[in-house]
Parts: sequence; C-alpha cells; structure tokens
Amino acid sequence: MAEHWANFDLHLDVNLEGARLGRSLEDALRAAIRDGRLPPGTRLPASRALAADLGIARNTVADAFGQLVAEGWLSARTGAGTWVTGSPGAPDAPDAAVRAAESGGGTGSAPHTAPGPRRGLGYNLRPGVPDLSAFPRREWLAATRRALASSPDHLLAYPDPRGVPPLRQALAGYLARTRGVSTDPERIVVCSGFVHGLALLAQVLGARGARAVAVESHGLPEHRAVLSRVGLRLAPMRADAQGAVPGGAPLGEAGAALLTPAHQFPLGMTLAPARRRMFAEWAAGTGAMLIEDDYDGEFRYDRHPVGAMQALAPDHVVYGGTASKALAPGLRLGWLAVPGRLLEEVVTAAVLTGGGPDAVNQLALAELITSGGYDRQIRHARLAYRGRRDRLVAALSQAAPLARVTGIAAGLHAVVELPPGRRETDAIASAERHGVAVLGLGEFDAGAGAGQRPPALVVGYATPPPHAYTTAIARLAAALAEE
Amino acid sequence: MAEHWANFDLHLDVNLEGARLGRSLEDALRAAIRDGRLPPGTRLPASRALAADLGIARNTVADAFGQLVAEGWLSARTGAGTWVTGSPGAPDAPDAAVRAAESGGGTGSAPHTAPGPRRGLGYNLRPGVPDLSAFPRREWLAATRRALASSPDHLLAYPDPRGVPPLRQALAGYLARTRGVSTDPERIVVCSGFVHGLALLAQVLGARGARAVAVESHGLPEHRAVLSRVGLRLAPMRADAQGAVPGGAPLGEAGAALLTPAHQFPLGMTLAPARRRMFAEWAAGTGAMLIEDDYDGEFRYDRHPVGAMQALAPDHVVYGGTASKALAPGLRLGWLAVPGRLLEEVVTAAVLTGGGPDAVNQLALAELITSGGYDRQIRHARLAYRGRRDRLVAALSQAAPLARVTGIAAGLHAVVELPPGRRETDAIASAERHGVAVLGLGEFDAGAGAGQRPPALVVGYATPPPHAYTTAIARLAAALAEE
Repeated sequence: MAEHWANFDLHLDVNLEGARLGRSLEDALRAAIRDGRLPPGTRLPASRALAADLGIARNTVADAFGQLVAEGWLSARTGAGTWVTGSPGAPDAPDAAVRAAESGGGTGSAPHTAPGPRRGLGYNLRPGVPDLSAFPRREWLAATRRALASSPDHLLAYPDPRGVPPLRQALAGYLARTRGVSTDPERIVVCSGFVHGLALLAQVLGARGARAVAVESHGLPEHRAVLSRVGLRLAPMRADAQGAVPGGAPLGEAGAALLTPAHQFPLGMTLAPARRRMFAEWAAGTGAMLIEDDYDGEFRYDRHPVGAMQALAPDHVVYGGTASKALAPGLRLGWLAVPGRLLEEVVTAAVLTGGGPDAVNQLALAELITSGGYDRQIRHARLAYRGRRDRLVAALSQAAPLARVTGIAAGLHAVVELPPGRRETDAIASAERHGVAVLGLGEFDAGAGAGQRPPALVVGYATPPPHAYTTAIARLAAALAEE
Repeated sequence: MAEHWANFDLHLDVNLEGARLGRSLEDALRAAIRDGRLPPGTRLPASRALAADLGIARNTVADAFGQLVAEGWLSARTGAGTWVTGSPGAPDAPDAAVRAAESGGGTGSAPHTAPGPRRGLGYNLRPGVPDLSAFPRREWLAATRRALASSPDHLLAYPDPRGVPPLRQALAGYLARTRGVSTDPERIVVCSGFVHGLALLAQVLGARGARAVAVESHGLPEHRAVLSRVGLRLAPMRADAQGAVPGGAPLGEAGAALLTPAHQFPLGMTLAPARRRMFAEWAAGTGAMLIEDDYDGEFRYDRHPVGAMQALAPDHVVYGGTASKALAPGLRLGWLAVPGRLLEEVVTAAVLTGGGPDAVNQLALAELITSGGYDRQIRHARLAYRGRRDRLVAALSQAAPLARVTGIAAGLHAVVELPPGRRETDAIASAERHGVAVLGLGEFDAGAGAGQRPPALVVGYATPPPHAYTTAIARLAAALAEE
C-alpha cells in the first residue's frame, strides 16, 4: 500500500510557512480538484504518507481530508482510502461528465440503467443504478479469495452453460427461501443480467414460432428492443391498480408475456393475486411462456414482499433476477429459473451465443450467498433505500405538495405525478436547470394507446452517493415547486 | 454473530391474520423444509430477529422452533443457533446430493472445448482447454484486489458495451505490441470469449443481408453452428499447405469469411502471405467481412509468431482473441478489434443481447496486462506447452514411428496422422482402451467435400496436469503402436 502511494505525485501549493497549515492544505486540494489536476476518481495518498511528504503532522492532513469529505470534495471508505469525488454542487462537476462518457453516452444503451446525466447535470435521479458506493468491495474480494482458494481446477474450464454447480445450488436455495421460487439447481441458468436472459428467451420464442409478446403498458425500452430485434411483435397490455390486465387482444395473439409482478416497472403497483392466477391459467391453457422480471423483489419496505409469481405455475413461468441492485450492475450476474420443458432450448441458445458469465465471479457469488453475506448486503441496502424513499416523500410533500408519489413502498425508484397542469417535458427541463437528471414516465410508454397516465417523473433515488442525496432531492423538489 | 442472523431473509407464507400464529409459522416452516426452500444445513434467524421481521411475539417464534426441533425438522445448539436438519426420516443425505450436483455437468456443449472424457477415461488429450493447474490464481486475486481498490465507483455501473475503458486501453496496446494489430481503444469490443464475439458478428452479418459465410475445410463445429443458427449458409473452402484457398464458389457467394490465419485450427498450417493478400483484396473489393480467429496467436515455438492478418486490412478484418488459452476459459474474457465502419452495428448487437463480461474481471485483466503479469504468464505457458509438444513428438517417434505429427510448432494441439491403413474410429477406440480421450480429425470436417485429408487424430497436449502428462502421451503412443 505504502509503495503504491510512493508513486503518487502531485504538486500542491501549500503554504508551509503559514500558521494555518491545515487551512492552506484544504485550499490547495480544493484548487487542484477544481482545476482538474486531481480528477474525480483519483485516490489520494494515505494521510501518513502525504504528511511525511509535506513534512507536516499527520493529524493536520487527516483533519483536512475530513473537512473535504464533509464538504463533498472527497469521499473515504475504511480500508480503501480517500477519493476525489468532484466539485460539490458545481454545475460542471467533472464526475458527472466522466459518468456520462463512461455510460456510453447516455443513449439508454444499457439495460435497467440510469443513463449518465447530460453533461453538466451533477445529480443523477434517473432510475436503474443502485448506490455504487455501497458495493461491498472488501466482502466481494474476500468471496473471490475463498472461491479461488477452494475451487477445483475443472471449474475454470468452459463453464457448464447453465452456470457452475455451486452457484446454481446456492441460488436455488436462496430463491426458494427469499422469493418462494419453486425450482432446483438443474433448472437454474446463470446469465449475464436480465437483458442477457431475456435475449435467450427471445431466441427460444422465435425458434418456437411465436410471433408476438404481450408487454406491460410501461417498461424498459431496452427490453422491448430485445424482443423486437428477433422479429417478435409487441402487444402492450393496459394496466390498472391491480397491475397488467390479462385478456383481450394482446394476450390473444401472444406466445409469451413479460411481466414485473412484484413491483411494476416503472408504475409501481403489485400484480394482484387474481391477476396472477389469470395469467397462469392463460399460459397453462395456451402453452405460452410467462417471463417474470423480478428486478427488485427483495426491496419491499412496507411489509414482507409478495412471493414470486413463478411458484403459481413453475411449468409456465421463467423467473428472472439479478445481483445488479443488491451488488452492482457491473458484475453482470443474473439468473433464470426455467421450466423443465424449456430448459434444453434455453441452454442451446446460451451455448450458441456464448455470453454467459465467468466462473470466478459465479463462484464468488455462491460464496457470498452461502456465507450469508448476500443477505446482509440486501438488508443494508433495503434499510438505506427505504430511508431514501421516505426522505424523498418528505421533501416533496414539504416543498412541492402538489406533486404526488405513487406506487407501493418498494424498490429503487418512485413515480412522482406532477402538479396539475405541468407537462413532463417542462418538469424535466426545470429539473435540468436545477442540475438534476430525471426521466419522464413517457420514456417508458410501450405505445399502442395502452399507457394513458397522468404526467409523471420516474425518480431513481438509489444512484446518488449518500453525501449528495439531500441536495439532489432538495433540488428536485425545488424544480417541482416552480410554477 | 447475532448481526448475521438478523440479516437472514426468508419468504414464508405465514398467515399473520389468524389466531394461531404459532401453528401457522410451524406449518410454513415445515412446508419450506419439505419442498426444499429451506435445504438441510440452513441456519435459521434468531427467534428475536424473525419475530421482529414478522411483527409477532418472540415467544411465538421460539415455541414454533422448539416444536420443530422436537419433531426432528430442526436442531438447535446453544450458542450456535437453529439449523434445518431435513424432513424427518428422509433417506437422502444432503451432502451427497450436493456432491452429486457439483460433479455433474458435461462440458461438451461449450465452445473451443475439450469435452470431459467419458467416465473411466483418465487422460484427456482432446484439444481446446489449457492446463488449468497453471492458472495463476494468486496473481489473478492480486489483480482483482488492485482493481477493486483503485477503480472509481462508476466503473461498477452498467459497463460501456464495448468494455471498461482501462481494459480497452490495455488491449489496444497489447495487441499492437504482440500481434501487430492496428486498432485503438475506441474500436475494441470486449466480449465473453470468441463464440460470443462470433455470435455478435453473425447477427451483424444477418442484419446486413449476408446469406453465406466462407469457412475453412476444418474448424470447430460450434463456430459453424453459431453461424448456421442465424440463417447463414456455410461455404467450406479447400485448404492446402498454404492454408485456405481463396477464390471459387465459396467466396463468390459469401458475405464473410472465417479464418484462423496464425495456425489453422485444427490442421496446423499458417496462412501464407500471398493468400492473406488475396483474402484482403477480396474483402476490400466486395465489402465482405473477414473474421480472424487468433485463438492461439501468442503460442509459436519455432520462431517469432506471424503477425495478425488484421493489419493488412484494418477496415475489413474483425480480429478476435481471448484469454482462454493464456489464463483460463472459465474467465470468459475475449475481445474483438472492429473496423470503424462496423463498430456501431457490433455494439448494438452487444447491447441487445446483453452478454458482455463483468467490470471487475475486465479491470483485473487490465491490471494484469499493464503490470506485465499477462506477458509473464504467456511466457511461462509458452515454455511449458513447447516442452509438451516436443515430448509428444519424441514419444510418438519412438513408440509409434509410423504416426506423423504435422503442422507448425505452435499452439496447444497437434495433428497426428495415423499409421497407414488405420482408421480414425479404430484409433480413437484403441486410445479409449488405454484410458485416453482424443478426437479424430473428421470431427472438425466442414463437409461439402472440401476436407479430404489422411486419417488423423487431433491431440490437445495442454490439458492434462503436469503430473499426468508423461503417462497420457505414453498411453497414446501405445495405442497408436497397436496393429
């Protein structure tokens, strides 16, 4: 570690003669961050090393770091050092620009994603990405170490296309225990996130001759694009307070239906028990495939989560979930629980498109699940996101009482209905003027007239790091309070 | 310890409305154990934590636990908590089931693979998998640690669909330096191995209206299956000592050609310079796509390896490579260097099939490349495999002098032409009797009459761990020496 720091080289204009050394160091660091000499993401030397370099007391350095962390210029994580986060509140905060560039230009190209905010928007309240500063780096490294230390060599060969057996074993138990999924390790297919799983299912549907897929009135455009790409037509279903409405034209012609039963994305209602039964009966009667996207099933705040729809009809529902919300999307770890009758086709699609996740991360996730660390991480995240949701509701009810948060208390996003008379485009533009990136509900509309809804924003409250969250929602509330 | 239990997460269908809460909880736990959602060995949350979760009295939970312990479903140990023991009297010991699941799973469906030898065949000389005991576990863990310690949070979001910038940067430099590839980080697309990359290219070809792909007379059946699956017809090309023969019917109708220029797989010759130019001119003249599978380009033993064909025509060749041979196939890390004119289509295919590799491993590979560890690993592997090839040639020339090793001194496999009069099926059967798994050259024949060759075995000499290699080749030689 110390060696690493020895390589850190930075010219700081610290006035070592002055009486107020600490203040001078703070100013020098702020200046270096502001003018880009210390770009966001830079790790600072340990306070001990920097103090030795500058010939000043370690406490002076530590106090300066602490002050800048409090101000939002730096962030610190125990065991991982101190980092540059960017100029707090600056409309051109460089970290926002970096995020925008890194996220593929904000084209919405990544699935379940919060595209990087436009250049200059420092606060990202688009839905889809969890708080990445909460990713348990140390625990993940420890799980990787245990996986590498304990796995036989053959697990490093081309993995079983369904995933390595220890992870399928762990997932089958985990999904049964936490989501009520009725499956076994032989019918788990580990995939690289939900879009990968959905792309495999789309291939299977195409090969089976399906022509259309029923989709919810609102959902991720990327998911619809995955289905369209293989030639499947989209048949949007209406939704009401009970969730998607089965029956009618959309189901009549569909070979499958894509649903988010636990927490409709993005509208936020739960698919009612009677509706679940109707979908299951439709699938059983027609041989259609129900695809259950359980994207945030572990994150329910008001009561115990509703179990997976899959348990109602394990022969007709493909259940899909990921570690993207509980850990990080960058891990690209997801899973399907596949009905036995479809398993061979799904595995063939996986083999001939070659996109499955690597064995080492699979083994690490298995370690994390069986050790209890994954549950622990979810528990922490649930508490944190629940608190964020409460704070969002409180901030809006105080500053913009005419805006209304709808949907159940769950997940990582909320739908905020706009004050009467406001249009989504105006509210988004107003938020942008306040430095906040959000999306309108219209972005998720599947079209075909199924999605008539009052104007609303879809607010992802998980993405900003903790130190930025209060400001982010205050600015959003201010934007919504405007005439 | 207590904290750990508080984080246990379980979906239980407990009827919280009823008067007999304890009985309902008991029933729910029994059902969960019976149908496997709570597998034997699962540790239950502390009664205090579960009671808090469910919003019921702790005594109710404690009584239910006590009842189930008495019935044999659970066991409790002071200070160690409460465990699931299984359905009372169930015959199947859980650890045996776990072991069976772990050892299962043929790998025959994976690409570039050495399918697991038949039960009872102790020595695997099928081509495709490196010596997994040489995987540098410690170095990989160290690279993962450095990656996790030094990467800003935003790299853990949905990755750029081309791969994380540090890895694209490292690969562009590495490929230029070691293989003469002419590219830059913007045109690198990181993928999950060559089959994943090929599947992306097959999609692009299909979308461009290509109808056929020229393939070499011999190659991996999995690669041909990837192309066929999207509706592309295969047009096999003849090969001679100079490699694949351009021109004629196969190229006349093809929108692409798939080639292994450095070391034809599996025949073993290098594509001659004049042939490379002819293919490049064909592609430039017709707008066709050349796909260069550089599967073992770093492994040449007799002289400096021939550079990548890609440098001849960077606007027409998609270069593909992987870390599967240098590190391990299980990492699922590969890369394409894509002509600029095709980049957007390849990236769109990657986004809408969702199968890219995870960010942490990408960052670890970037670390390994920039630190020099990847080069070092390749040097070690090259020395080891060169020695294995020499020993194979020596063993065969001594014990089975009528068998002939053909192809250049390179790679991880050799083609062994059989003694006159012997058929491939007989040689394979004889090897099996000696406990050795090999494949015949016929397994790789693309058909259509392009592949007339003397009977031969394709011997992968990289797979057996060092301690087994001497015996493996002695047994193969003995099998080939039989009449």
